[in-house]
Amino acid sequence: MSLSTQPYKGARDFYPEDKRIQKYMFSKLRQVVESFGYQEYDAPIIEPTDLYLSKSSDEIVSEQTYSFTDRGGRNVTLRPEMTPTVSRMVAGKRQELAYPLRWYSIPDLWRYERPQAGRLRQHYQLNVDLFGIAGIEADHEIIAIADAILKNFGAQEQDYQIRLNSRLHLEGVFDELDLSVDQRKTLLTLIDKRAKIDAGAFEKLFYEKLEEQKAKKLLGYLNDVHQLPPKIAELIDLLSASGIKNAIFDPSLARGFDYYTDIVFEVFDTHPENNRSMFGGGRYDGLVGLFGVDTVPTVGFGMGDVTLQRFLELHNLLPELAPETDAVVIIIGDQYTAAQKILNELRAEGARLAVDSSGRKIDAQIRSAVKSGVPFVLFIGEEEIKNATFKLRNLKRGEELHLPAKQVAETLTARR
Amino acid sequence: MSLSTQPYKGARDFYPEDKRIQKYMFSKLRQVVESFGYQEYDAPIIEPTDLYLSKSSDEIVSEQTYSFTDRGGRNVTLRPEMTPTVSRMVAGKRQELAYPLRWYSIPDLWRYERPQAGRLRQHYQLNVDLFGIAGIEADHEIIAIADAILKNFGAQEQDYQIRLNSRLHLEGVFDELDLSVDQRKTLLTLIDKRAKIDAGAFEKLFYEKLEEQKAKKLLGYLNDVHQLPPKIAELIDLLSASGIKNAIFDPSLARGFDYYTDIVFEVFDTHPENNRSMFGGGRYDGLVGLFGVDTVPTVGFGMGDVTLQRFLELHNLLPELAPETDAVVIIIGDQYTAAQKILNELRAEGARLAVDSSGRKIDAQIRSAVKSGVPFVLFIGEEEIKNATFKLRNLKRGEELHLPAKQVAETLTARR
Repeated sequence: MSLSTQPYKGARDFYPEDKRIQKYMFSKLRQVVESFGYQEYDAPIIEPTDLYLSKSSDEIVSEQTYSFTDRGGRNVTLRPEMTPTVSRMVAGKRQELAYPLRWYSIPDLWRYERPQAGRLRQHYQLNVDLFGIAGIEADHEIIAIADAILKNFGAQEQDYQIRLNSRLHLEGVFDELDLSVDQRKTLLTLIDKRAKIDAGAFEKLFYEKLEEQKAKKLLGYLNDVHQLPPKIAELIDLLSASGIKNAIFDPSLARGFDYYTDIVFEVFDTHPENNRSMFGGGRYDGLVGLFGVDTVPTVGFGMGDVTLQRFLELHNLLPELAPETDAVVIIIGDQYTAAQKILNELRAEGARLAVDSSGRKIDAQIRSAVKSGVPFVLFIGEEEIKNATFKLRNLKRGEELHLPAKQVAETLTARR
Repeated sequence: MSLSTQPYKGARDFYPEDKRIQKYMFSKLRQVVESFGYQEYDAPIIEPTDLYLSKSSDEIVSEQTYSFTDRGGRNVTLRPEMTPTVSRMVAGKRQELAYPLRWYSIPDLWRYERPQAGRLRQHYQLNVDLFGIAGIEADHEIIAIADAILKNFGAQEQDYQIRLNSRLHLEGVFDELDLSVDQRKTLLTLIDKRAKIDAGAFEKLFYEKLEEQKAKKLLGYLNDVHQLPPKIAELIDLLSASGIKNAIFDPSLARGFDYYTDIVFEVFDTHPENNRSMFGGGRYDGLVGLFGVDTVPTVGFGMGDVTLQRFLELHNLLPELAPETDAVVIIIGDQYTAAQKILNELRAEGARLAVDSSGRKIDAQIRSAVKSGVPFVLFIGEEEIKNATFKLRNLKRGEELHLPAKQVAETLTARR
């Protein structure tokens, strides 16, 4: 029996045409976050399972991790999120690092979920975190970066909406209603699912979990989008000063993770076919402290590649991407050895050249070049080498140029 | 008890200063392989364990893989090498792909080994593969790429040596001696370890495994570096035409993997402190065929990041790398909101700016900027905004310039 050619279920192979899209997206992400002074870090995909026990949501650790025991008896997990890892790394050099600390990474994350549209078992996620700023400037900056990323891809203000809430403020409402820790947890999970269930069903569940009086009061709060907590109002003003006008208060925004301590936000796609939360983040001031060092105020967000790509496709924001290779080189006659010198020269000038050394007929070589999507064919034969002038065919326009080496390289690199 | 801040044993955290080195190395790798017309692909780190059972060496699969059963009962493995994966992907689109096919990737690979200098449990490995060329041009190109990479980092010819052998030729010698399949396997493993053991001990082992007559003959062959197999001689000439003069025939080069079918090569560091094989590759024409499709002639190599970095460090080829961030922005007075417009403008011009929004005294902010290694500090206050002229301090030279926005951006981006 022969082996399967399929990738592991719920994960993706990236053939060059797929990888090209990913590289385009990641390069934009890096460009924007670096323009805000962020520096890239990375860490092993394997972490001790302990790292997730106290911080991630229970559902993820007990049902959705890729956990196993290594050959040395250690319990390990493929990271389902990056936040515990980055907190570990900051804690590890708590005293040596210069604050404010701006870090980003684009790790691949693994969760054992039922694969479905837009939710795979493996995805890449941009993680952006600002450490060391307790003030609202940090919340503002993190949200401004999320916004700048979408705009840098060409998105318009009306293509998405930024929704804001404060977990601290929500806890204050819970305090007023004198709710227990268990009740808070249940309600946060329920509130978090509000957008996904029917309004009537949502209210019904609410009245099941709480006394009538309290349920009514809390639902009233969740439905009142006009009475902004002062910090949210300030944040909206600050975002507006940065040219961001599509941020609103959403009192029923909760976010799934337990570790958020104040401002949380999510970015929603406004496209009618994809009207849902794309990504989000918030403030989590306590995590670094779990490693036995002083806490560090922290704000961050995560943005997944699958969701981002879906957004870009729906809004027609993904450009046509040509292959990285500039030209297929067709060697005429027995000149492979003689051609090496000029190939070295052209590559030193920056040209990206794929030599067709198949020995097939020239017609077959040209057909193969066309099939590969590479824009040019360069012919090198005895005459060309002698005269130091080469025939360059533009496969799209069909035109042919006879050029000296330097101009060949210039023509090829100019197209990028 | 607080959580550990250490990464998983045998794997590395990449703090920004480490990641910067990796980014420098990977960007050079990409630049060179793309100049030869290679396109990047990628695949999930998890593969079905079956993928490795028939192709990798027994030692790796049974003792050194990270294998486990997923929540759906599938036996899976974190890839210990990329070759089975790339063969799977080519087989999956065998008919649709345009040949010659040039692919590369820089995956992270996992092996459960005892961590030691230069051998970690996790490393990144450039994988470069050329599919569809049965002729020696493919072997030549793959070795020329390996060479171009080292030269592109600034290495000189005398810093390394390229050693060549032919597994096909070695099998021919085995045929002459009428060796059994088991004997061949044992001997290949032994030959592969030659460089690591004492010459006397090596010969003794040889005489233990083989009849005296055969052992003598084989040792004679292994020691005769002057009688080049014709294909090796041709390859050395071709490499020489590409300007590569440091390739030699090494009859006792075997390579650990079972799947090689003809030419194999390894690149050795000539540095006295690190005189050992750094990386290598060869021809493996049979792998794609294991997936139930027609075979594809293939040549490839893998180059690990740990070994490469050690080579660059030993030969003083790693430059000083400055942080990605151009300037720390210090806001004078209560101007955070007012500064947003100019910050947007400067970032749009390409400047990478980290705003110190800590609210500390200006002296403390400057000290923190110096500590972070960022080369400039940009001051923005009420006066500066009113006059649209900003104070830029070069932290290395100590000099201060007063510049309009456009020139601030130009000065900052010019340093890169």
